[in-house]
Amino acid sequence: MIDPWSSAILNYKKLIREFGIKPFQDLLADLEDPPLLICRGIIFGHRDYGRIVKAIREKNSFAVVTGMMPSGKMHIGHKMIVDQLVWYQEKGADIYIPIADMESYSARGVDFEDSRKLAIEEYITNYIALGLNPKNENLHMYLQSENKMVTDLAYKLARKVNLNEMKAIYGFNGSTNMAHHYVPLIQVADILHPQLMECEGPEPTVVPVGPDQDPHIRLTRDIAERFQKRYGFITPSSTYHRFITGLTGGKMSSSKPKTAIFLSDSPEVAIKKLKSAKTGGKDSLDEQQRLGGVPEDCVVYEMLLYHLLQSDAELKEVYRDCIEGNVMCGECKSKAAIMIKNFFIELGKKRQRAKRSAEKILNHN
Amino acid sequence: MIDPWSSAILNYKKLIREFGIKPFQDLLADLEDPPLLICRGIIFGHRDYGRIVKAIREKNSFAVVTGMMPSGKMHIGHKMIVDQLVWYQEKGADIYIPIADMESYSARGVDFEDSRKLAIEEYITNYIALGLNPKNENLHMYLQSENKMVTDLAYKLARKVNLNEMKAIYGFNGSTNMAHHYVPLIQVADILHPQLMECEGPEPTVVPVGPDQDPHIRLTRDIAERFQKRYGFITPSSTYHRFITGLTGGKMSSSKPKTAIFLSDSPEVAIKKLKSAKTGGKDSLDEQQRLGGVPEDCVVYEMLLYHLLQSDAELKEVYRDCIEGNVMCGECKSKAAIMIKNFFIELGKKRQRAKRSAEKILNHN
Repeated sequence: MIDPWSSAILNYKKLIREFGIKPFQDLLADLEDPPLLICRGIIFGHRDYGRIVKAIREKNSFAVVTGMMPSGKMHIGHKMIVDQLVWYQEKGADIYIPIADMESYSARGVDFEDSRKLAIEEYITNYIALGLNPKNENLHMYLQSENKMVTDLAYKLARKVNLNEMKAIYGFNGSTNMAHHYVPLIQVADILHPQLMECEGPEPTVVPVGPDQDPHIRLTRDIAERFQKRYGFITPSSTYHRFITGLTGGKMSSSKPKTAIFLSDSPEVAIKKLKSAKTGGKDSLDEQQRLGGVPEDCVVYEMLLYHLLQSDAELKEVYRDCIEGNVMCGECKSKAAIMIKNFFIELGKKRQRAKRSAEKILNHN
Repeated sequence: MIDPWSSAILNYKKLIREFGIKPFQDLLADLEDPPLLICRGIIFGHRDYGRIVKAIREKNSFAVVTGMMPSGKMHIGHKMIVDQLVWYQEKGADIYIPIADMESYSARGVDFEDSRKLAIEEYITNYIALGLNPKNENLHMYLQSENKMVTDLAYKLARKVNLNEMKAIYGFNGSTNMAHHYVPLIQVADILHPQLMECEGPEPTVVPVGPDQDPHIRLTRDIAERFQKRYGFITPSSTYHRFITGLTGGKMSSSKPKTAIFLSDSPEVAIKKLKSAKTGGKDSLDEQQRLGGVPEDCVVYEMLLYHLLQSDAELKEVYRDCIEGNVMCGECKSKAAIMIKNFFIELGKKRQRAKRSAEKILNHN
């Protein structure tokens, strides 16, 4: 049987086995209308997501928290987070989006004014362009530095966390600056503050992250339990997603422009980048016709899997044509190029429209 | 020549020699109308106080910052700080009094609501009763946790301080909680924030402290210099005062009631405590008549020196009578008892009147 997305999970088996992250498949049946990213195994694991499934099914309130760190430009890999938010927004979630200006300052020296500007012009604009409804009253977007409820809570939580724990998780040492030492507690507070009585009160909360963020999630869950008695926190749930591969094969990263298609790229640039991407093709055409390609090693295929092809049937066809050697990389890239062109033309228009809402959203919160 | 307060400085000679704290005497001549505590060597040293002398003389603006940590009750030793504030208020200073509720929480687990209550009912009430004018528009009293300008600045400053520095100064280790690790930076911001453009702008600032606080002052001065370019900070000055000796000979401490006369004690209790205090008397009356007492070792004498006797001439007389063996401890205590009785009767009345202003002061800031 052809399973065009089974490979997604392979690399994360160890994580699942050793750290108690649960595979997502077991919950799929209980989830009405699951998003593509879950069906295709891109979101591959979770902790305590059962609570969220239950809240969605029973139409109880729940929260989603996912921060954005305003540094550099957004690339197409970041779209994955927004896709999840759009889906959660349809499900009626209380959505909290902290803009991590405090982290940006302590870790990268970005000024608070610059963070604000970048957040509005780049991140918030793209979030809206990609489908997040800025007018939904359950949406809360804020700058960490301006949210006193968060900074107050962070300090209160900080009393039950010691330096050894921080060192073990974040690898801090003696030369790490004190703002950097402290900022993970701001992020813990970002996740827990929706459950304060001044906000929503205790409710299931899910944090979508990459697997590299799991230590932070574990700390947050521990802290939630240490303060359970005081605040009634429900231990937050989390989901784990794969990262999209960069154009050159490694990680896609805003700080390495050659690896990334940026959301602000023109359709022409996007096509050019896609065409230069590493594929799962063989060394010679002849060999590829005989043995087929390897979609699991192909950036173009991943782009289709994550973002460009909504139809499972069509995706299966692409997969089959590749492994059977029916379609070569050139042809496949040309088809993908048309899709990415259309996507970027559309996104460009939406970004134009989104700009004005983006400017307003931080002020009216 | 009889110098009834020279001894005050003796114990601190090392501090002055090794750490660059300057003795106060050199500045005395330049200071118009210096307060008793300076004349009598109780405030024995300083860093860069010349700036403050100049500001006072030229009627330029300057700030005084001195925090109160709401924990336990105020004792008579704490009066020293208020005496200084009253004097500075007369000189037109911008007075900033942070109430260290964040420190109280991280170091002693005191709840924020409890801190607020204790600050109002005990500390602020006494400050006003002891002569601080609550209506002066240059007076700023605030809870750390409610002053966003301070918490914001603390975080910004924290980027240029690393863990090694904090460890060296405060002796933190791996089991120290993160709020405790962070709170010294709040105190640095307490001292520096009056110089922000949103407050007074750069101006000379003095922080009256005990010598045990000097490492914190040195850190604050270093940080001020690291951010000098950005904020234009004038490196803060400091003064150093002796602590009053406890009734039993050691340190006077609110957490050891036997050592302290509390400002909320009734006159009767205050007298009783004074009469039980350790003196500089000899083992036998005969011996004392022959050899005289040692006022430098006498808690009662210290009480006169710090607080009860305003007249230098009278104080000299007490000193001489003691060392010459003319007046024995019993007689001396009886005289001091009358003074302390009058002081506490008066203070009790003033405390009653001060209560209402104390309740208002945190709200109208």
